[in-house]
Amino acid sequence: MILQKKPKKNNKKIVIYGFHAIESVLIQRPELIVKLFISRYEDKRGVKIKTLAINKEINFELIESKKIDQISGHSKHQGFVAEINNPGFLSEKDINSRLKNLDKSRILILDSIQDPRNLGACLRSALAFEFDAVIINKDGSSPINEHIFKTSVGAILNLNIFYVTNLSRSISMLKEIGYWVLGLDGNGEGSIFSEKFSSKTAVVLGSEGSGIRKLVKENCDHLIKIPISNKVESLNISVAAGIILYELKKQQIT
Amino acid sequence: MILQKKPKKNNKKIVIYGFHAIESVLIQRPELIVKLFISRYEDKRGVKIKTLAINKEINFELIESKKIDQISGHSKHQGFVAEINNPGFLSEKDINSRLKNLDKSRILILDSIQDPRNLGACLRSALAFEFDAVIINKDGSSPINEHIFKTSVGAILNLNIFYVTNLSRSISMLKEIGYWVLGLDGNGEGSIFSEKFSSKTAVVLGSEGSGIRKLVKENCDHLIKIPISNKVESLNISVAAGIILYELKKQQIT
Repeated sequence: MILQKKPKKNNKKIVIYGFHAIESVLIQRPELIVKLFISRYEDKRGVKIKTLAINKEINFELIESKKIDQISGHSKHQGFVAEINNPGFLSEKDINSRLKNLDKSRILILDSIQDPRNLGACLRSALAFEFDAVIINKDGSSPINEHIFKTSVGAILNLNIFYVTNLSRSISMLKEIGYWVLGLDGNGEGSIFSEKFSSKTAVVLGSEGSGIRKLVKENCDHLIKIPISNKVESLNISVAAGIILYELKKQQIT
Repeated sequence: MILQKKPKKNNKKIVIYGFHAIESVLIQRPELIVKLFISRYEDKRGVKIKTLAINKEINFELIESKKIDQISGHSKHQGFVAEINNPGFLSEKDINSRLKNLDKSRILILDSIQDPRNLGACLRSALAFEFDAVIINKDGSSPINEHIFKTSVGAILNLNIFYVTNLSRSISMLKEIGYWVLGLDGNGEGSIFSEKFSSKTAVVLGSEGSGIRKLVKENCDHLIKIPISNKVESLNISVAAGIILYELKKQQIT
């Protein structure tokens, strides 16, 4: 019996579709595009995508809309589909070289977020508030694929995403290079309303159902909560993430 | 030809299912329950729901799981389903009587949010941060139904929701009774990072695609934005709502 080597997740191609998705790849990371297909070429959006492709020297093929249905797997493609290389992620071994020498720095750590819509929204917020990096555990989280591309509205193209196997070890590495690591937890002692953040802060969020895993939580320097009415069990996780990212950004600039 | 009178949306019954949904209705608004069906009665959750129902004097029927599939329309009911009366909404004519005499007050106004998941998350955040009311335009928004019940995690049971036909008129009424009305808009002059909110503030959010409608926007006292990286077009609308609600809450209590 020959054991097949499991292909690395990071090497998988991603099929993306829709005007905004294709436009953002063409503008931000055209080098990722392997194949580009267009079925619209006379209206405004078609002309825009064609012009962008020509300017960026990306080959494209004009094909029938039905063929785009087949490639994209459904009919919501608006006439545009592309196969792109996975934008590539950093790994645990890059933590020191990439993050050690940052002066003021904010990092988001996501522990086992499985809902692609929530994960995508967290990534979108991390880019919106200019976080330096997002660290995600490879095994317990939603895979970073075309759904995350869509729900993050392309944010994965521009973020430094570290894809790691052991979050606790990554947190220990961050602590060694001067980060203060906060966990967001409903039972946290601190409150976001009064917390003053360190100039190098990493914040950890767990999944909506079960929160941060025990060992990861124990490795945090401090746990804080977002105080809410007792009529609500919790906030939606992407909303909670947005709030803590906002507050960190605000304290950095004001 | 006899014109059938369209039934009022507010009078529709709502079918809810799942342990948490049924538990929250039994605890918070048991009087809304018209019918309650259970297929689990020996395990922990089954005993909990049965005990709650008995304590609240709510009749229930033990039936087969398959019948619950039929009533709820699918299989994710966890053995619990109920038909409840719509919790009832306030209308424009209640604005003065309900909101005029509040000293410190915060209101969320949602203009045409059509995505049920976003609408539900906004309602959940409004309850979490103890907003006094949410005003929603009846015609352009997602109907408040079982999906909103689920995505708001039952928040609709505890919120004062005003369901109105004319948002601009409602805003004018709020201004007359002393509210300062802010619109959240990507092109707003003000910034949430520096804004000091009035003790009576209403904040308006529009839909993710098109923002606040023109006339509604013109009726706001002031437009503010959440400044974000130019690599991102916008935040997810429920994330943006969570951030502004959080900031309003924070300024009220600190």
